[in-house]
Formats: sequence, C-alpha cells, structure tokens
Amino acid sequence: MTTKIILDCDPGHDDAVAMLLAAGSPEIELLGITTVGGNQTLDKVTHNAQVVATIADINAPIYRGVTRPLVRPVEVAEDIHGDTGMEIHKYELPEPTKQVEGTHAVDFIIDTIMNNEPGTVALVPTGPLTNIALAVRKEPRIAERVKEVVLMGGGYHVGNWTAVAEFNIKIDPEAAHIVFNEKWPLTMVGLDLTHQALATPEIEAKFNELGTDVADFVVALFDAFRKNYQDAQGFDNPPVHDPCAVAYIVDPTVFTTRKTPLDVELYGALTTGMTVADFRAPAPADCTTQVAVDLDFDKFWNMVIDAVKRIG
Amino acid sequence: MTTKIILDCDPGHDDAVAMLLAAGSPEIELLGITTVGGNQTLDKVTHNAQVVATIADINAPIYRGVTRPLVRPVEVAEDIHGDTGMEIHKYELPEPTKQVEGTHAVDFIIDTIMNNEPGTVALVPTGPLTNIALAVRKEPRIAERVKEVVLMGGGYHVGNWTAVAEFNIKIDPEAAHIVFNEKWPLTMVGLDLTHQALATPEIEAKFNELGTDVADFVVALFDAFRKNYQDAQGFDNPPVHDPCAVAYIVDPTVFTTRKTPLDVELYGALTTGMTVADFRAPAPADCTTQVAVDLDFDKFWNMVIDAVKRIG
Amino acid sequence: MTTKIILDCDPGHDDAVAMLLAAGSPEIELLGITTVGGNQTLDKVTHNAQVVATIADINAPIYRGVTRPLVRPVEVAEDIHGDTGMEIHKYELPEPTKQVEGTHAVDFIIDTIMNNEPGTVALVPTGPLTNIALAVRKEPRIAERVKEVVLMGGGYHVGNWTAVAEFNIKIDPEAAHIVFNEKWPLTMVGLDLTHQALATPEIEAKFNELGTDVADFVVALFDAFRKNYQDAQGFDNPPVHDPCAVAYIVDPTVFTTRKTPLDVELYGALTTGMTVADFRAPAPADCTTQVAVDLDFDKFWNMVIDAVKRIG
Amino acid sequence: MTTKIILDCDPGHDDAVAMLLAAGSPEIELLGITTVGGNQTLDKVTHNAQVVATIADINAPIYRGVTRPLVRPVEVAEDIHGDTGMEIHKYELPEPTKQVEGTHAVDFIIDTIMNNEPGTVALVPTGPLTNIALAVRKEPRIAERVKEVVLMGGGYHVGNWTAVAEFNIKIDPEAAHIVFNEKWPLTMVGLDLTHQALATPEIEAKFNELGTDVADFVVALFDAFRKNYQDAQGFDNPPVHDPCAVAYIVDPTVFTTRKTPLDVELYGALTTGMTVADFRAPAPADCTTQVAVDLDFDKFWNMVIDAVKRIG
Repeated sequence: MTTKIILDCDPGHDDAVAMLLAAGSPEIELLGITTVGGNQTLDKVTHNAQVVATIADINAPIYRGVTRPLVRPVEVAEDIHGDTGMEIHKYELPEPTKQVEGTHAVDFIIDTIMNNEPGTVALVPTGPLTNIALAVRKEPRIAERVKEVVLMGGGYHVGNWTAVAEFNIKIDPEAAHIVFNEKWPLTMVGLDLTHQALATPEIEAKFNELGTDVADFVVALFDAFRKNYQDAQGFDNPPVHDPCAVAYIVDPTVFTTRKTPLDVELYGALTTGMTVADFRAPAPADCTTQVAVDLDFDKFWNMVIDAVKRIG
Repeated sequence: MTTKIILDCDPGHDDAVAMLLAAGSPEIELLGITTVGGNQTLDKVTHNAQVVATIADINAPIYRGVTRPLVRPVEVAEDIHGDTGMEIHKYELPEPTKQVEGTHAVDFIIDTIMNNEPGTVALVPTGPLTNIALAVRKEPRIAERVKEVVLMGGGYHVGNWTAVAEFNIKIDPEAAHIVFNEKWPLTMVGLDLTHQALATPEIEAKFNELGTDVADFVVALFDAFRKNYQDAQGFDNPPVHDPCAVAYIVDPTVFTTRKTPLDVELYGALTTGMTVADFRAPAPADCTTQVAVDLDFDKFWNMVIDAVKRIG
Repeated sequence: MTTKIILDCDPGHDDAVAMLLAAGSPEIELLGITTVGGNQTLDKVTHNAQVVATIADINAPIYRGVTRPLVRPVEVAEDIHGDTGMEIHKYELPEPTKQVEGTHAVDFIIDTIMNNEPGTVALVPTGPLTNIALAVRKEPRIAERVKEVVLMGGGYHVGNWTAVAEFNIKIDPEAAHIVFNEKWPLTMVGLDLTHQALATPEIEAKFNELGTDVADFVVALFDAFRKNYQDAQGFDNPPVHDPCAVAYIVDPTVFTTRKTPLDVELYGALTTGMTVADFRAPAPADCTTQVAVDLDFDKFWNMVIDAVKRIG
Repeated sequence: MTTKIILDCDPGHDDAVAMLLAAGSPEIELLGITTVGGNQTLDKVTHNAQVVATIADINAPIYRGVTRPLVRPVEVAEDIHGDTGMEIHKYELPEPTKQVEGTHAVDFIIDTIMNNEPGTVALVPTGPLTNIALAVRKEPRIAERVKEVVLMGGGYHVGNWTAVAEFNIKIDPEAAHIVFNEKWPLTMVGLDLTHQALATPEIEAKFNELGTDVADFVVALFDAFRKNYQDAQGFDNPPVHDPCAVAYIVDPTVFTTRKTPLDVELYGALTTGMTVADFRAPAPADCTTQVAVDLDFDKFWNMVIDAVKRIG
C-alpha cells in the first residue's frame, strides 16, 4: 500500500534528496511538489525543484507557493545553500524541462486534501511552513481531513539558526505556530534527529558505486553541502535533513519517536522560533504531536540508496 | 467618476451602515462584499451581510472569507454586537434572499485587483484584516496594483479593546502588521476619528423622517447599538465606525488626515494590537500611510442619509 | 508649611533648573539631592549636580546613586545634553566646591523616609527610576511611608526617545515598572505636560532682567538647550521638563491632573518604555496614580523666576 | 586552603542540606548566610535558615535580604516545599536560637566582597538571584572583585517550573539576567546536573547509619522532599539541588563542566526564565560562563555524608 503525499519544499541540497527519495520509493505516491520561499527566494527554489525533477525525470506536478514569511522579514540560508539555493560544483545542472503548474501551491494543497478520501493524503513540509499555514487558514477543514503532517524543522534540544531555533521555524515562526497548534497528527523531524543523518564518506561512496547520472548528482550535492556545512557550522559531514521526513512516510520504523506537547515561541529575545517540547511528564492522552528521537542510520541510508537506484 | 471598491467586513451594526453607504453612493461601484470572522463568527457575519443585502436589495456579490485570526485565538465582540453579531430590537430581520458566491473571499480580492486596471480598485476593510493579509501573501502583486486601502481600525490615541488597542487590530494583530507594512497607500480611519461619528438623537431623527423601510432598519440599528455602547463602554451615543472608511472613498474631504508612519505592535504585554503612529517629526517623503484626524460631522451624516434615501 | 523632598536627578540642563526651583522655593525643604546615571554617566551627572550646587550655593547634601539601568544596556542623551551632560556655552562653569556624601543614594532615600514621620517626605525623581526602584525593593516599607512620588517621565500621548516612549522611562523600563506598580501616590509629569513648559525668548528675557549670576547661568542653560532641541528634535524652544515636577510640590495648582491607571510596557517591539494610561473609563476608586495634563504657563515660570530671584 | 563563601539561599529542604555541606566542609569558610524570598516568603525562609543553623549549631551570621522578585509577581514553590517552606514530618524542628543580623543581606554581600582581598570570596546562590542582582547594581565593583559565582538554578535542556525554565530563574528572570550578564566567572549548576543528585533509599540509609541528630534531620528532610517530589513532579527520589553548588566549591571535580555562552530569556511566551546555552560552536575565548554537566554521584554524596558526620 502506498501513501499519497504532497512534498512542500524549498530546494535546497537536502530537499533535492527528499524529492529523490519520494519519487524513488514505491511506498509513496507523490501527488505534487509545492515550493515556498525559504533556503532561497521562491523563484530560485522553484527553479531548483524543476531542475531536480528534470535530472530524475520526476513527473509529479510542481506548484509555486508563497514568496515570503507571514510577518517577519525575508531571510535566506545563503551560507548553507549558496546564491542559487542549490549551489553545486563538479556537476552541470540541466536547463529544466519540467514545467510549473498554473495553480497556486496553497490551492493545490487544499484541493488535493479536499478531493481525496479523508485520511489519505499526508503533508511533508521540508521548508518554512508558510504554504501550509495559509492553506489551513484559507480552508480550515483540511486539518481534520489530512492523514498527517510530517515536517522537517525545529529541534527540541538543538538549534542552528540561533542557539535554540532551527532555520525553517525561525524564519517564519508565525506560520510554524499555526501549523503546530492545529489538531492534526504532527511529527516533528527536527535537528535532534537530522543531525544523525550525516552524509559520511562511507555513505557517499555507496552512492558513487551506483554509477548512474542521478547518483552522480547526489554525490555532487553531498560534496557541496559538506563544504558549506564545514565552513558555516563546523561539521565534518553534512546533515541531510529533509529526506528524514520522507523516510518516515516510507517506513516509520526508520526512527523512534516520542509523544510530547509541542509549541513554537514567537516572543522571545533569544528563543523566537524555538520548538518547545514539554518532557516533564508523559504526554496527555489527546496529544497529537510527537518528535523524532533516534535514527536507524543504516535503514535510512539504504532507503535513500535504493530510491536513487530505482530512479536509475 | 466612480471608484470601484471591495468592502471587506464583519457585520456588525456599523458594518451594515457601511454597506448601505457603499451601495447608495453614486461615487462608488461596489464590486463585492467579502466577509471575515470578527465581531462574530464567520457564519454569523456572513448571514448578516446577506440580511443587509436583502433589506436594501444590494446586488453586489457576497464572498465568505477567513474564519479566524492568523495566530491568536478567536475573540468576538459580543458585548457590542450581541450573540448574532447584529443584534437588533424592534425590527424583524428578513430571511436572506441574497446568496453567497462559491469563490473564496481571498481569491475574489486577488482576482478582482489583478483583473481590473492597475490603480482602479480600492480595498475598504472594516473588520479584522485577515482576508487582506492572506490575499497579499498569496498574491504579492496586488500590493502595487491596488488603488489604496482605506480601513476602519486602530487609533493613534484611543483604544477600546484594551487601553491602547482597537478591536479589529487587536484580535488579529499579525494580519494588521502585514497590511500596515505593505507599500500600498493606506488610510487608517481609527477610533480617534470614528468616536466623532456619533449617532446622536438628532441624527437618528433625520433617518426617522425618511420613513423608508431601510431607514427604519438604520434607526433600529442605532437604538440597539446605543444600548450596547452605553452598557459596555459608557457612551451616550454609539460611534458608527465603519461607514467612516466608506465615506472617505465617497469624498475624501469628509475628514482631515495626517501623513505619518504607522506600525502595529505585536509583542507588548499592555500594547499588543496598538497602532503606533510617529508624530515626532514630519513624515518622510516615501511614507504611504496616513491617519484620519477630524471628521466633518454634518458632511458625513448627510452623506449617509442621502445614501439611505437613494436606496429607497 | 514646607514639604520635605528628595530630588533624584541626572543633571542635565532641566535638572539644573529643577535644583534651583527646589532650593529657591520656601515651600520646599530640600533634604538631599541624589544622582543617577541617565542623561549622562553617573560620574558626569554627579559632577554637574555639584557644579549647580556650587553656582547657587545649595547646601543640601548630594549622594551618588546607581550607575546604570537595571536590565537594559546604558544609553545616554548626548544629542540633548552634550558630552558633559550639561553642555553649555557663554558661561564658565566653576569647579565644584560642594562635596558628595559617602552614603549611597539608595540608602539615603531609605533612611530619610524611614527616619522621618510617615507621610512627610516626597520623592521627586527627574531621571531614570533606578535609584527609587532599588530603594523600594531593598526596603519595601518606604512605599507606605513616603508622602508621594512626583516624577518627571513618560507621556500618555507623546514620546521623544521613540514614537511613544520618553527617555527616562525608556532607558530603564524595568525600574519604571517597579515604581509605577507600587501602591504609593504617584503623579506622572510627562511630556504631555512638559512640552508646554517651553523656555520662550520672552521667558528667557525675564531671567535676563534679573541680572544675577544664577540668572545668567539659567539663560545660558536655555540657550544651549534650545540649540540642542532645535537640532535633535526640531523644537523652536526647549521644553524645560524637570522643574515641572518640583513645581507641583511648590503648588499643585500649577497644572491640572487626571486620575488614571498607569503602567509601563516592558515587552513591546515598538512600545517598550511607553507609559500606558487607560482613559476608557473613570479611574477606579483605589487608583493611586495620576497624570499631569494642562500647565498654567505663567504660574510655572513666575515660580521659577521667583526661586532664582530668591537664590540671588 | 579554604574558600570563603557567602551562601545566598531560601531554605528549602535542599537549601538546608547546602547549609550543612557548607558548614561541615573544612574546605569552606562560611562567611555568612543571606536569605531571599523564593521557595517561600522571606520571613519563612529566614526562619528556616535560623532553624537549620540551630539544629547544626552553625555560627555563621544570617542576614535577611530582598522580599520579592524585581519585576514579576511573587510566586512560591508550595507544592515542593510546603506551607512553611521546609515542611517536614517525623522530626520536631526546634525554636531557633540563632539570631538574624541587623545589616541587610545586600549590604553584607557588598561589604564582604569589598573588604576582603580581591578574588577571595565566592558567591553561592541557591535561590532566586534578587539579592545578588541588587548588590551588583548598587555596587558594580563587586563584579570584578568576587572570586566567582556558583549558582544553583536554570537548566540547559531541563525545566521544572515550565517546560524549559527552572524555578529560581523563572520567578525572578530579570535578576537572573543581571547576574548572568555580569563579567564574573559564573558556573550554572542547573537541573541537568541536579536531577542526577537523587536522594535514593541507599543514600538515605547511609545517613540513617550515622545516627546523629543532624543525620536524623537530613533523613526526615529527604522523606518529606521525596513525598512532595513524587506528588508534584512524579519523581521516585528527590533531586537534592542546592548542595551541588556548594559541592563544586568543596571540590570542582565533583562534576564535569562545559564552557558555553549563557543568557536568560525575559520575553518569551513559553520560554521566559529559560537559561539559553549556545552549544553550536566552541565557546569564545572571553566566555566567563560554564554549565555543570555530569555529576560524580558517589563523590557528591560522600562529601555530604562526611560533612554531616563532621557536624556531629
């Protein structure tokens, strides 16, 4: 049985891998790819989504979403993703042959959830949550009709954009606050988890062995991502965040989770954009939120390798 | 020459009068009425818009908008507008014969502005700014294409929902922050102005003399509004806020304005939802915001009386 | 009958005039002058207090207080008071012959209030409220033992350091919050009032006619203050804030007041340091705070002129 | 060689143990005990300090400090420490025979640090930081003259009073902000550490074996503390927080530490009072703050047992 998903993303090196994992996994029916301003401007990340779809011949439709955060000023992750949003060396990116649809991403999200059977479509956001927030405010009924929301973002004990906040949440905390406070099942795949999903040289070697064009692309992505993460945040190997959220759809045993109340800080001087988990007691029975805790490293990377192999 | 407007409202006693002024003024082409959760729930205020349209035979299309504030919890003005949102005595409200369109208010706003000539459609919001905020985030190009935004809300020295904040802004301050920070021409018709637009017994008598069904409706509105304002806020006569914004479209000389930078406080313990004007120095040349200062009381009420007379 | 006061100040051109008014008014017994970091550093304003005491032969003891705001970073009003805190031209300031006492200002305030009869000593702060806040936290009993607090600071509709906040409150809002929330009788003499206390050329001429050395000092103060206010804030004539608070002790009919709840915003992005008055309804019976509204211009200036004349 | 300390506390079951450890350790010269409103009112915690000093015949002088937080309303930890602040069963507390000195705690702190050699007196606060904050604002020179500040409070990944804030910091965050931002060497012994210092039945048995009156008192403290912690926070065994800070003075190898920038959130809706550590990169060279990480459980408890044994 497959799960229908919408991948809402801002490619982004790791978003690209998320696209490949979604497209190459038989457990997933990728209904559409929606883009949102985040790692770079909407124009750039949408172009990147088209490029990745072209490289991997992904035929899921692509929809442009919202250009900027709800309330806060625009901020992009240029030190991590470069001027293009998917800066890459040693691999020539093609001109995209995949087109962008005319419908707005927000409407595609709403229409897809409302026109499919209740409880069948999952949202997988891997960028700022602006599209998702606008969708649920425009059409509140999607909250009870969606299957679940599995998002890459936040962190209960780890930050990257500030000491305690992660980029996707920090740059549009109001959107995140909206999404985290809706009553849908929500899994936060945060930095606590994704910092375990490192693209080590051993992992990279396995992709290299595949020898396909798409695998070469992945290797080039990892190389570029490693360099940026070394320079900007002192990592030896880059954490490949976004496919972790997709991986949970493919097989939820890829990581352990913990049920806990979650909320987003909007008003702190030091903590705005922090995803606040309350671990002081067992989560109440009606709690619909959980966090990803421990990654099965081998299962995760095998899943990604298999997907890239399937794409060919 | 007429001005095309969209009236975005949450009727609401004074919103009803705004509808009548817009519908009965030859200077205005009322392209549509959009509703938003505010004074009461979206269902109730939309029903009220239909009722008012039925009473006055207003044929502008009506569109449902957003049900709730972007970030903050729902709050309604029951002490001012009653359980129905347009509580009224001594006048039997008809079952509405005017229908609600299928298109979402946010899309109607976007499509109307994008499909008319640039600089020809004005937005006149008289409720919380949630619809307008969603529209400009979903389609940012409306900001430079709209003629202007003339809104009822806020106050530079007067509050009603808190010591320094007005209801429309206070209940969705994030939406207001979005609207006040876009680069469109914006006129804030706040409590400083609208507390001058009192429905005195003398004014009410003039409506009474008209003797029409619609005039009777207005008189009944004023009576109910007066009682609520006396009980809740100690006013002798009710301030009829919302038609003041429409009146500025009909004839901008109905009040004096002052150009000043404006912003909305989102983070205060005492001041959240305050519209902060900076009067310390002349406004900078590129300032696109102004506040309404002094009302021409007679001109305003004659305008409303004439409109009601025209409706017949 | 005289009123015993402690003048807590940060001279400052207008603080200097407040010292002269306090020293030259038979209605006031000036128990001591305490200094606090504000318009300039504590060292500079304490030196200035000694200089003014030397010029006018004021023998009230002088006490050094707190160097910096409770929580926020140090900020001084150099554009208004210059590098020395009492920058002045055309008048040679003497080396001070008046000494600073060894006791800390906070302890002098506490000891004086606790050792005098209850209800006999008034506090007149004209700078940031750091000393007063520390005193009432160190010895809470002064709150019920003091006669009253009459402070220069804040503004209910006027700001100077931001659009809605005044310097004394803005630079140490936590101290102000403490002082405004204690249950002592408190009169806020804010910018709404003090912007009426302008040192016009006509007023300056009257001081000039006095022909004394102290009057010459005042004239030189006004000249320097006028120039700074013209350059920094576009005033024609400088508002002489601080003596207004002293004037209320001399004769409370020098301005009208309005009883109203008052509080200080600590958390706003635009409004931190705003003194929030709630004018929506009559103040509750147990309200102990009031604001100064309308100045009797002639009575005020005659009071200051008489005081300077008496000093000789 | 001994270290001179001032123990600033709000007994409190665990503060009582901290007093015993300080009094019974030859490595420490206990110059004085200062009290502060916290776990209970100032009157109650000061009384408790006298009671503990009486039980253990501690002759260090006791000084009363500040009654309440700087800015926030009073809040006590009644569910943890009971109505008396040191609620205890099965042990009859004596009437205190030790007196409270006349000097204010804030002045004792200032005078002691200023009158001893620079770098010789350590401050060990185990309650809210109000006394310490007032002292350093009243006499800023103590910041460079103190040896170090070793405080129990906060937590980098653990909260108790809210999801992410600890009681001592949460109830007076402004005081904590002042203390954490001064440039003295500061060690935060937070919940991350103190939740390792559990009074297990095995530990309690060892105290029981001592058979002294003071040991009986400790056992009774643990029993009462255990019950409260079970009821209020679901712990099997109570974390004995406050002696951990004293233990670090006795022997800094009792726990590992990590150098990291620290600050206190004042403005969050969910995070106010959180101690924010930034672990994203190695601490900068001029960083003067560190956090306690891993407790040597046996070393710690042996230290406390030995101290109680020495007291006899």
